[in-house]
Amino acid sequence: MSQKPSIPKGTRDFSPAETARRNYIFDTCRRVFRLFGYSPIETPAMENLSTLLGKYGEEGDKLLFRIQNSGEQASAPPEKGLRYDLTVPFARYVVQHQNDIAFPFKRFQIQPVWRADRPQKGRYREFFQCDVDVIGSRSLVNELELIQIVAEVFGHLGVAVTLKLNNRKILAGIAESIGHPDSLVDITVAIDKLDKIGLEAVKSELAERGIDTDAIARLEPILALSGTNSAKLDSLAATLSDSEIGLAGIAEMREIFGLVDALEIPLHIELDLSLARGLNYYTGTIFEVKARDWSIGSICGGGRYDDLTGIFGMPGVSGVGISFGADRIFDVMEGLDLFPAEAVAGTRVLFLNFGGEEQAASLRLLARLREKGIPAEIYPEAAKMKRQMEWANRRSIPFVVILGADELAAGTVTLKNMQTGEQQQLPAASLPEMLTTK
Amino acid sequence: MSQKPSIPKGTRDFSPAETARRNYIFDTCRRVFRLFGYSPIETPAMENLSTLLGKYGEEGDKLLFRIQNSGEQASAPPEKGLRYDLTVPFARYVVQHQNDIAFPFKRFQIQPVWRADRPQKGRYREFFQCDVDVIGSRSLVNELELIQIVAEVFGHLGVAVTLKLNNRKILAGIAESIGHPDSLVDITVAIDKLDKIGLEAVKSELAERGIDTDAIARLEPILALSGTNSAKLDSLAATLSDSEIGLAGIAEMREIFGLVDALEIPLHIELDLSLARGLNYYTGTIFEVKARDWSIGSICGGGRYDDLTGIFGMPGVSGVGISFGADRIFDVMEGLDLFPAEAVAGTRVLFLNFGGEEQAASLRLLARLREKGIPAEIYPEAAKMKRQMEWANRRSIPFVVILGADELAAGTVTLKNMQTGEQQQLPAASLPEMLTTK
Repeated sequence: MSQKPSIPKGTRDFSPAETARRNYIFDTCRRVFRLFGYSPIETPAMENLSTLLGKYGEEGDKLLFRIQNSGEQASAPPEKGLRYDLTVPFARYVVQHQNDIAFPFKRFQIQPVWRADRPQKGRYREFFQCDVDVIGSRSLVNELELIQIVAEVFGHLGVAVTLKLNNRKILAGIAESIGHPDSLVDITVAIDKLDKIGLEAVKSELAERGIDTDAIARLEPILALSGTNSAKLDSLAATLSDSEIGLAGIAEMREIFGLVDALEIPLHIELDLSLARGLNYYTGTIFEVKARDWSIGSICGGGRYDDLTGIFGMPGVSGVGISFGADRIFDVMEGLDLFPAEAVAGTRVLFLNFGGEEQAASLRLLARLREKGIPAEIYPEAAKMKRQMEWANRRSIPFVVILGADELAAGTVTLKNMQTGEQQQLPAASLPEMLTTK
Repeated sequence: MSQKPSIPKGTRDFSPAETARRNYIFDTCRRVFRLFGYSPIETPAMENLSTLLGKYGEEGDKLLFRIQNSGEQASAPPEKGLRYDLTVPFARYVVQHQNDIAFPFKRFQIQPVWRADRPQKGRYREFFQCDVDVIGSRSLVNELELIQIVAEVFGHLGVAVTLKLNNRKILAGIAESIGHPDSLVDITVAIDKLDKIGLEAVKSELAERGIDTDAIARLEPILALSGTNSAKLDSLAATLSDSEIGLAGIAEMREIFGLVDALEIPLHIELDLSLARGLNYYTGTIFEVKARDWSIGSICGGGRYDDLTGIFGMPGVSGVGISFGADRIFDVMEGLDLFPAEAVAGTRVLFLNFGGEEQAASLRLLARLREKGIPAEIYPEAAKMKRQMEWANRRSIPFVVILGADELAAGTVTLKNMQTGEQQQLPAASLPEMLTTK
C-alpha cells in the first residue's frame, strides 16, 4: 500500500482547472443546442451486448468493454457492455420510446463513451461525446440548422474553423458513372485517405481493390476539381449527368448552399469530395469540421442517415446529426490559448482567518458576498498569514481580504489585489459592491 | 430484431423532461458549491480493482461491477471495476496528485456510480452522486460551511429539510462510559436501526452482540434524551464526564452550534444520537438530511473522517464531506411538485413552416431571436398546419409564430399563445422584444 495508487491506462483524472475548461466547452455546446430547440437525453453507461454487437464492425466488437455478470452468473458469458458511442444508444432509445416521442425528435446528448483501443497520445479509453441529432425529418432545413450550430459553437469558443461538406449520393453517383456502382465503399474508403496518403497511393489502393485503370482515370479529374463550391457543383453536374442519384446529391448540396448564403452564416464552408468518413450508415450530407489554426484531425463531424433505427426494427426513419469532439476541441483551445479567464475563474476573494471575533465578523461578511453571487471563502483555520497567502496564490484567487483586529475595531477591511499587490482600506459594508464592479 | 430493444435491469434512460429536471438539481448544487470556493474534479468510470477492493466491506466487494479484460487477456481475472462511490476515487486522487494540490483541498464531484445491487423501487444499478469534501483541515469552520451549503442548496430547491447532527466521538464516549469501549461498531450499528426497528428490537440486538444487560440499561436514557440541542449536550456532558473522547465530541458540537447560531442559518438542525451511519470511517461530526414533507430515507449525508487517504499510504489527513442524493431529491421534488417551470423550459417559440419565401423570412427572423438568447425553432418542413400545431403542443412550446403569405406581404407575424389560444398580429421587427418581456 505504500506504492502510489494509479488509474487504468487510457483513462484520465481531471483537475479543477481542466474540469472547468472542459465544462466551458460543454456548457457552450449545451447553450447553443438549446437555442436551436434541441433537448437533452441521457442513456445508461451499460447497454445489453445484443444492442451493441455487430453495430461497429468486427473491429468495433473487439473494442467493446464487456462487464462481468455479478453473483452466481459471474462465470457465464457477459451480457452487458459499456457504451461505445452515443449514436447506437440514441437509435435504441428512439425505438424503445417511440410512442412517447413527438417526431421529428431533436435531441442532444453529452456523455462519456468507452473503447478498448490501444491507448496513445490523444487517444483515450474513456472520452466524452457531444452529439446533436434530429430524427424523423428529411428536410434540409435540419442540415442548415446543424451548420448554424457549428458556426455558433465555434464562434462562441473563438475557434476559427472550416466546415467541409460532401454528399454520399454524389459519391454514389461517381461510383456509378465510372462503372463501379457496387464498389462505393471501396471507393469512399480509398478517397477518405486522399489527404493522408496522397493521390498516387489512393490510385494504387483503388487498383488493389479491383477498380480498373480506365475507371480510375475517369475518377481522377473529379478528385482534382477546384474553384468555388458552386463551380465545383456545376462541373460535377456535367460529369454526372447520367446518374440520377448523383444529380439528386448535387441538388441537395445546392439547396443547402442556397440556404446558407441567404442567411449569411459567418462560416468558411467548402465542398470537399475527398470527404467520405469511414462509417457506412451515412446516406446524404456528410459534415466534417477542421480547426484552421491548429493541426489536428477533425474536431466535429457527422451526416445524414436514412436507416439508423432499422437495426432495431424501426425502418425508414431519416435523421441527421453531428458530434463535437470535446477532447480535440480542448487541445485546440489550449494550444491557441483560447480559454477566457472567466472559463476557469473560481473563488473571487479569500478572507484570511485570524480566529475569534475576526473570524466571526468575516463569516458574516462572507454570507453577504455569497448572497450577491460572489464566490468567496475563508481560510478554514487561523494559520500563519504566509501560509494563507500562499494558498490564495497557488489557487490564483484574485483578491484577499484582511479583517484583523484593527479593521474589526474600525469597521473596515483591507482589500488586497493579488496581481498588482495594491492594498486599500474600505468600509466593510462596501465590500460586496466593490467586488461586484471590480 | 423485431423485438423492441431494452436496457439492462436497474438502469434508466432519461427523457428530455427528466434530464432537464435532474440538471436543475445538479446545476443548483454546482452553483452553491462554487459560491463556497469548492472546485470540480472528475475521475474515470473505471478504477483498478486494487483501488476498490476491500474498501466497502465484503458485501461491497461483491457489488462491484468488474470489467472483462480486452484482447488476449480476456480470460484472465478482471483488473478493472466500475466506480462504486466518489469517496474512494477522491482519496485515490488526493494521494496520486498530492504534489499538485494546495491543501486544504476543497473539491466537488458530480458523477455516476455503479453497484450490482438487486434492483428494486428507488434503487438503481447506475445512479449519480454529488459529493462535496474538504481535505487537509481539522477546523470546524469546514463543518459550518457544509451546513451552510445544505441550507443554501435545499433553500434554492425549495425543499424543507431537517439536518440531523451527531458526533462519532460522542458515540465512542458512550461506548466507553457503559464499559464496552471495544463494541463501538456493534453499538452504533444497533443504534443506527433505532428509527427502523424500535427501542426493544435494538436492545435485543445489543444483547445478541454481547452487550450486558447492565450496560444496555445505562445506554437507554442516553437514547431517550430530549429537549433542545443545548439541553441534550448538557445532560450528555454530565453522563460522559469521565470520558475524554466523549467530552471532546461534546465540545465540537457546541462549537458548531455556536457558529451556526451566530450566523442565523435558516435551517432546522437537530442533535440526534441515534444517527450513526453504517460506514466505519467517520471519526467526528456526522450529518444526515431528511425531507420534512415527504417520506423517504436520508437525502443527503456525510461526516468527518480522519484517515481516508491512509488506505493509499497517506495517513493522518483529516477531511469532512457530504453527499447529495440526487435521485431521492428528484423524487421528493416530483412528489411535492417543486420543480419551477423554468427548470423544464425548452423552446420558447415555434415558427410554423410554410416553405418558400415564408420559410426564408422565418429563418432570418429566427436568427435574430437566437441572438437575443431566445430558444426558438422552425418546424423543419412545410407539413400540414394541424400536424405542426400538434408538435408544438406535445412539446409544450408556449408560443407559435405564423409567418404566412399575408404576414410576409404586410411585414408582420401572427403570435399565438398556446395556453390561452390568444392571437395577435405584430410587426415582425418587434417580435424579439415581445418574446423577451412576455
